[in-house]
Amino acid sequence: MDYSELFSADTHNFMRSPVRDIFKKVDLSKIYSFAGGYPHPSTFPTDRLASMVETVRQKYGDKILQYGATQGTNELQEALSKRYDVPADNIQITTSSQQGIDVTARVLVDPGDVVLVADPSYLGAIQSFKSYRADIVGLDLTPSFEASKQRRATIQALVDAGKKIKFFYTVPDFQNPSGETLTLAQRSELVALAREFGFLILEDCPYRELRYEGQPQTTIYTLAPERTIHLGSFSKVFAPGLRLGWMIAAPEILDKVYVCKQALDLCPPVLDQYLAAEWLSSGELDRNLEKTRELYRGKRDLMISMLEKYMPEGVSWTHPEGGLFLFLTLPEHIDTVALYDKALAAGVAYVAGSFFYANGTHRNTMRLSYSFIDDEKIEGGIRILASLIR
Amino acid sequence: MDYSELFSADTHNFMRSPVRDIFKKVDLSKIYSFAGGYPHPSTFPTDRLASMVETVRQKYGDKILQYGATQGTNELQEALSKRYDVPADNIQITTSSQQGIDVTARVLVDPGDVVLVADPSYLGAIQSFKSYRADIVGLDLTPSFEASKQRRATIQALVDAGKKIKFFYTVPDFQNPSGETLTLAQRSELVALAREFGFLILEDCPYRELRYEGQPQTTIYTLAPERTIHLGSFSKVFAPGLRLGWMIAAPEILDKVYVCKQALDLCPPVLDQYLAAEWLSSGELDRNLEKTRELYRGKRDLMISMLEKYMPEGVSWTHPEGGLFLFLTLPEHIDTVALYDKALAAGVAYVAGSFFYANGTHRNTMRLSYSFIDDEKIEGGIRILASLIR
Repeated sequence: MDYSELFSADTHNFMRSPVRDIFKKVDLSKIYSFAGGYPHPSTFPTDRLASMVETVRQKYGDKILQYGATQGTNELQEALSKRYDVPADNIQITTSSQQGIDVTARVLVDPGDVVLVADPSYLGAIQSFKSYRADIVGLDLTPSFEASKQRRATIQALVDAGKKIKFFYTVPDFQNPSGETLTLAQRSELVALAREFGFLILEDCPYRELRYEGQPQTTIYTLAPERTIHLGSFSKVFAPGLRLGWMIAAPEILDKVYVCKQALDLCPPVLDQYLAAEWLSSGELDRNLEKTRELYRGKRDLMISMLEKYMPEGVSWTHPEGGLFLFLTLPEHIDTVALYDKALAAGVAYVAGSFFYANGTHRNTMRLSYSFIDDEKIEGGIRILASLIR
Repeated sequence: MDYSELFSADTHNFMRSPVRDIFKKVDLSKIYSFAGGYPHPSTFPTDRLASMVETVRQKYGDKILQYGATQGTNELQEALSKRYDVPADNIQITTSSQQGIDVTARVLVDPGDVVLVADPSYLGAIQSFKSYRADIVGLDLTPSFEASKQRRATIQALVDAGKKIKFFYTVPDFQNPSGETLTLAQRSELVALAREFGFLILEDCPYRELRYEGQPQTTIYTLAPERTIHLGSFSKVFAPGLRLGWMIAAPEILDKVYVCKQALDLCPPVLDQYLAAEWLSSGELDRNLEKTRELYRGKRDLMISMLEKYMPEGVSWTHPEGGLFLFLTLPEHIDTVALYDKALAAGVAYVAGSFFYANGTHRNTMRLSYSFIDDEKIEGGIRILASLIR
């Protein structure tokens, strides 16, 4: 039968994730994959998991398998409250930080509302905003006087056209896909614009703890707690197979999220929350993070040295201070979307950069991830990629 | 600051769950609680959980903690495919069956569309449909010629008024809140109406496996697979702290759900899925279900005998053949919403029946659950409740 008349208007704006569709088709362990932002499995406490389960069972008994509170377990809220020095009432546990993105859009966006994003931006966020029929406007965040004037002018023009701007979405630390980190000046400019034009900032920080050099930047939430929704994730500091993230925001905003989440999925995964609270409060998270940072720092350095060794002239890349990604810019005439099937046939996977731009431009860019691939495969993969580009 | 200008139009229709708000305020283990539909913790494999984790670790290694596919793990899809004799392509794993309800509304409902529900209906479903600004129309499912004529007339009037009816929502087995099960004739009538008027049926079956007497009814999905979305849940046959359910539906519908779910939360909880697949395929699920049914059958019988012993004349109740609930009808002049605070002060919790009616009527009804409360507390709780009613 034909269902097309029954689907909601939102579905016409649904956008498939080319990244997750790649994972559906290809066994990434069999090729040189720079595609997904998967953590390296050696960072997971797989071998200790059963004994961790036994620990939380002894502490909490049957509660680990029962329904939990919609806002999250007390134990996890309190562990996060302590670590990030915010009241527990300002914390909502989410079933993944992707849910944090989606539920934010749900409680803020009406069709036609503007969501501002950095250009390029995380694909899963663009996907979510589009699905609520937001008008997504990409801003070039280049830190120059000219670009800053342009940003203000773009926003002013939107307001003049009667558009409602709801929030600016950013991954300020080691961005997905660019790997770049916003300076304090860039963060302050965003806050000033948000205050002037009355919009919020959605600060998405899944990689913040993965810094390999340099000093941490102040969070945007610290600069403007009243108008920032801050998202954190356990996927890169514990395990993504436990679907857990958190939101830090004003209680008035979290109250809407709370009521929405009752209908979304009642509560976050409960066993996962007890494991995460234990991981955090026992100090395992910090001990493991040290090793994780060392591992990824080595992978980043190896990938950059291989890019330097093999890439032809005209190819440049970002130098991330942390996170899982770097971003390549190729000569103008190379289309990385068109190149993709050839690359896959040659055994290399990446994500075309244009997918991360609100309007699909920059077809000569690509995102490479160094987190999941084993060290000994990095050279081989980059060599193949370089020969394809050449 | 004032956020009211920033919230989406949907938020104005958000409805708080009185049930989940009860859990926020009261420690249910300290009172006589007939309120929540919590499974009894003795049905959970808490003591064996660590060894189950070790089993899935040995079988699947690091995959149990890595990101998973959006549609669910192969292992769980295949275990369900075998159990319910449907192709794996017709199965989407969901992060709780509540998510199955919500994502169905998301892909089908535009503001003003009609969702038909049985009156009374599961609160979490009403909450979700309202949040998408559906026009919720309750139908009296009484199996009589007159009532059947009335149902058809109600639907015809909606169509004549230019309304788009998207689906009928039902919990056909041991309904929440009434405890009642639809007969084959009732199911067939719904299917005939759906076919005549071109809407779908959302068949929500979290309690289906909890039958304590009589023969299972044919699922609506079996009667009309082309227009039924069937929902299942692990919450009552494994553990609700693992947030897992499943949808069975036509691939064209599941494709929309799949793309939506990419943006909602990327994938269902992965460790939970490996545990559930193991629970199912090892035969533990069926062995445990036998004990679970015996436990709840005993509790249902005990509660009914206590109602018979203590309730004054003018009070009647349903006799469920399975599930977790029975539904009380009190004399007309008693308002169970108004009675609630007095009951709580006396140490008894229930859920007022009017919350489950689309238009908030039937204020002389209440839902009692016998699943979570220990046997030795059932008599005391019913005695207090009876004296309050008297």
